[in-house]
Amino acid sequence: MVTWSKRGGVRPEAGMRPFVAPTTLTKVDFTDLTPDPLAFLGQAATIQLEAFEALARAVIEAPTFADKEGLSAAAGVALRKHHALIAELRREGVEPVSMMEPFASGAERFREVIAGSTWHELLLGIHVATGFLDEFFVRLSGGLPTELAGRVRGILSEAGAGPVLAGILQSSIAAQPGLADRLALWGRSIVGDCLLVARSALREAERPSHVHDEAEPVFTELIAEHTRRMDALGLTA
Amino acid sequence: MVTWSKRGGVRPEAGMRPFVAPTTLTKVDFTDLTPDPLAFLGQAATIQLEAFEALARAVIEAPTFADKEGLSAAAGVALRKHHALIAELRREGVEPVSMMEPFASGAERFREVIAGSTWHELLLGIHVATGFLDEFFVRLSGGLPTELAGRVRGILSEAGAGPVLAGILQSSIAAQPGLADRLALWGRSIVGDCLLVARSALREAERPSHVHDEAEPVFTELIAEHTRRMDALGLTA
Repeated sequence: MVTWSKRGGVRPEAGMRPFVAPTTLTKVDFTDLTPDPLAFLGQAATIQLEAFEALARAVIEAPTFADKEGLSAAAGVALRKHHALIAELRREGVEPVSMMEPFASGAERFREVIAGSTWHELLLGIHVATGFLDEFFVRLSGGLPTELAGRVRGILSEAGAGPVLAGILQSSIAAQPGLADRLALWGRSIVGDCLLVARSALREAERPSHVHDEAEPVFTELIAEHTRRMDALGLTA
Repeated sequence: MVTWSKRGGVRPEAGMRPFVAPTTLTKVDFTDLTPDPLAFLGQAATIQLEAFEALARAVIEAPTFADKEGLSAAAGVALRKHHALIAELRREGVEPVSMMEPFASGAERFREVIAGSTWHELLLGIHVATGFLDEFFVRLSGGLPTELAGRVRGILSEAGAGPVLAGILQSSIAAQPGLADRLALWGRSIVGDCLLVARSALREAERPSHVHDEAEPVFTELIAEHTRRMDALGLTA
């Protein structure tokens, strides 16, 4: 089970985080909000497919081969995560498509939200959304059956697009006056949508208003990580 | 060194082909037209990147999750080939970008040619172009230094997009009257562009008209394979 403390403390970047060893003290735990394994895998697989498609668009629109190399490697990671998750669905004896379709319309809305109107907005959209949601699903996976939880954590913890996206965005921001302001605004506008996606992943049967309270400290920490991610780009979150 | 006979004979599908053991008898050999290793790797890497981007577009535009699964796996294979080839460039001590840029404008023209105006035309464009060019570069790699030739053959021989593209196209053709005629016309129009790309990969310094004669039997066989590929879809090549 993945645990964490309210304090956060010093941790490496989300994408680079090694497996977190279980602790006996869990200050904040929302793993009783983890949905059944099939729904979890279906939604997580759908989100990784969205991440792949968004990164593929970023590759296609990239102005240089150097940018294409880093972005395509990141697209490959999202693709591996997607295929590993649908392999878990097959292992559970279900056809992956049937568990992804309930999330198709939500994913499409989310795709439109992060796409933005420029290549840099697309990059920041992916950075914000995958940074937030990859970490959210890693944490939520703590409520899955033990063995599955371990495999899912292994799948989702592979270092993703964060470093390459941050690198390209940092150099673009340094080179283009005015870009930082536009991107800061854009980054703020996406967090709300990430929260909606995350909330939609919580176990439905137990989602009266009080469980939102239970999940709130998690969202608070994920937003704090988002702020650190934006800070690292020199953007005000 | 990869060799082949004029007769062709019975062989498994191009993408599925196991490594071909060297034979002592080489009836048709154009490996003296293989360019220097850096140019070969640069162009082959550029073409695999194009294949990845085209397959990624096919994933993005795919109407179902089932189609996305097969196409995205194929995109992953093209991506692995691309990254393995640029790793070979790094191993040779050069920056991959510098060896890909000479092929950028040709690749862009080629991309526009195979894209088509519909999803099915895109799929057939990728099927025709990767079927033709993957096999062409495998054969041309026979003229590289021995160790590099073996590694490149290993990289390029991984089963690619052929089976998944053929599967989707076959079921679409069966379901949509009139699609076969339009696709047959489309497929014919792409072969010429594949030939242009292939010819542009031949060693420049030795490319007077007589070497075209030398390469001609190879192109004849590649076109015969194209015809078999179209036949398998029920399309007249």
